[in-house]
Amino acid sequence: MAVDVLKAVGQQLEITFDFQEALIGGVAIDATEEPLPAASLEQCRQSDAVLLAAIGGYKWDNLPRHQRPETGLLALRAGLGLFANLRPATILPHLVDASSLKREVVEGVDIMVVRELTGGVYFGQPKGIFETETGEKRGVNTMAYTESEIDRIGRVGFETAKKRGGKLCSVDKANVLDVSQLWRDRITQLADQYPEIELSHLYVDNAAMQLVRWPKQFDTIVTGNLFGDILSDAAAMLTGSIGMLPSASLGESGPGVFEPVHGSAPDIAGQDKANPLAQVLSAAMMLRYGLDQPSAADKIEQAVLKVLDWGYRTGDIGSEGMKLVGCREMGEILLKAL
Amino acid sequence: MAVDVLKAVGQQLEITFDFQEALIGGVAIDATEEPLPAASLEQCRQSDAVLLAAIGGYKWDNLPRHQRPETGLLALRAGLGLFANLRPATILPHLVDASSLKREVVEGVDIMVVRELTGGVYFGQPKGIFETETGEKRGVNTMAYTESEIDRIGRVGFETAKKRGGKLCSVDKANVLDVSQLWRDRITQLADQYPEIELSHLYVDNAAMQLVRWPKQFDTIVTGNLFGDILSDAAAMLTGSIGMLPSASLGESGPGVFEPVHGSAPDIAGQDKANPLAQVLSAAMMLRYGLDQPSAADKIEQAVLKVLDWGYRTGDIGSEGMKLVGCREMGEILLKAL
Ligand SMILES: CC(C)[C@H](C(=O)O)[C@@H](O)C(=O)O
Ligand SMILES: CC(C)[C@H](C(=O)O)[C@@H](O)C(=O)O
Repeated sequence: MAVDVLKAVGQQLEITFDFQEALIGGVAIDATEEPLPAASLEQCRQSDAVLLAAIGGYKWDNLPRHQRPETGLLALRAGLGLFANLRPATILPHLVDASSLKREVVEGVDIMVVRELTGGVYFGQPKGIFETETGEKRGVNTMAYTESEIDRIGRVGFETAKKRGGKLCSVDKANVLDVSQLWRDRITQLADQYPEIELSHLYVDNAAMQLVRWPKQFDTIVTGNLFGDILSDAAAMLTGSIGMLPSASLGESGPGVFEPVHGSAPDIAGQDKANPLAQVLSAAMMLRYGLDQPSAADKIEQAVLKVLDWGYRTGDIGSEGMKLVGCREMGEILLKAL
Repeated sequence: MAVDVLKAVGQQLEITFDFQEALIGGVAIDATEEPLPAASLEQCRQSDAVLLAAIGGYKWDNLPRHQRPETGLLALRAGLGLFANLRPATILPHLVDASSLKREVVEGVDIMVVRELTGGVYFGQPKGIFETETGEKRGVNTMAYTESEIDRIGRVGFETAKKRGGKLCSVDKANVLDVSQLWRDRITQLADQYPEIELSHLYVDNAAMQLVRWPKQFDTIVTGNLFGDILSDAAAMLTGSIGMLPSASLGESGPGVFEPVHGSAPDIAGQDKANPLAQVLSAAMMLRYGLDQPSAADKIEQAVLKVLDWGYRTGDIGSEGMKLVGCREMGEILLKAL
């Protein structure tokens, strides 16, 4: 579907895409017993950008960890050095009513979460399940950041805020965690290089509360891997339309990965109920941030707005008086709008 | 204020309280340079229960970590072995409109978060800021749980669910973290001993989303220290009346600690604006869970409801047509209601 949209927009703007498919996650496990086959990673490395679809499903939920779909995703992030994950939580005027929050609370919300993606407790060593002296098991993960890791993502945070509303909120747990103390110190030092940015700090528990209480106070948020995982999902859900949200994962150089914020939604798989727009908007994000084709990105985003203007909705964002359509039909209408 | 309420209810029911004051947090730092003086901890140990007020403030925010108010709180939890933290997020019918969420989403929400409080990344070793081989700093904390730690809090989760709606949701990040994998395995095994409880598992990012999307799906949640910190605050904020919420921290034996969920709110300190009801309801929770005086607890809780019935509100829970009062006046009215 997103590929059809890219082809259509490519024709209009005379961009030729060279599409290649590679396996990751559940389908890769079925074919090769590995969630990220070496050939797939190499193929991604050779590409200009990677457009990713959701990767899990009940079928693979009980495999040992090294064979789980999620492990493939983590290996792709690490393998391509994608340390910066950009997750917008924007609410379109058409979709205000899809939110579980009051209209006046969410109208106009436009947050960008900049999440560190290749460090923190997701990758810190040591990790594993070990035996203690008394013979019982102890599960261990290490939440760690070096100064250079913090600076690198911090800069992306400041630069992102610069292109947006000029406000950056750094989220940590510096009142308890040493790793957060170092995080806060470095971000505070970096701020000297960005005098035009208004920097604030919040503890992660307070940030979760403030997102619920008054999300409009946020512009750009920068935070570590785990806190970013939790807060970006909470922020996405505030909009009530997580089926609409794309994300970008970027490294220093080399291809970025573009994918919907939502997962594979195995509960509705095969029922033609899913919202294809997050995948399509991920393709637009790829054009903008990965392939330097902003006018193609614009075209796709405008087509999505047009479809919403016409009143078409998938079930997840449906509201009274709107035209309810399935995944396939939504795709066809979108191609028409293009 | 909470002390006055306890005295009043004690007179009615012929309970004599022996009150003693001990210093912790900011005031303790001012007096002794330590956030939890040994004498305070000993005094708490000798008591039947501890009623705690909020402990921080801007004044102490920039002290080194070992002298920060939060460090005193963590030392109290560890010192008294308070491994189980019970945080209700209940919405009273009077206060539905104070929520940022739609009425139909929050009406009837009644969640209890059971948070592990003396383990996980808050206390795991090693921790600190170390120098790497290349000479840069690395901040490190360790997220760890042993089987016995998980079983101990897991049992509190199941027992709590038994006294409530019979549903327990365990929250972890088992698709990424080894410590969460062990957590999930043990909780799943424990479930055999509680066939009457309906157990489910959620990843922490999804749990944060589901709390925003449809909080009524939750009854009791059991989770680790950090996830519990974040989720209980998000859940509390859903109710829109965090100024109303008490919490209890309990150990195997010995005194429990009872305190409001909200912090010290330094932004409104000294302005007679705070909502005293969380502190009062913490006293009620102390009577119920710490001192085995359920009828005294009932009396206090009924008085709080009466005050709300009469239409009195502090600013944080105010809505149109209600009588806005300050902290002091709210207290006086409450004593009348008793
Ligand atoms: C599937 C999982 C490993 C992943 C994560 O935790 O990073 C997902 O939740 C996400 O946010 O992309
Ligand atoms: C003050 C802080 C150390 C504490 C915590 O993180 O546990 C607080 O946020 C809480 O939830 O009681």
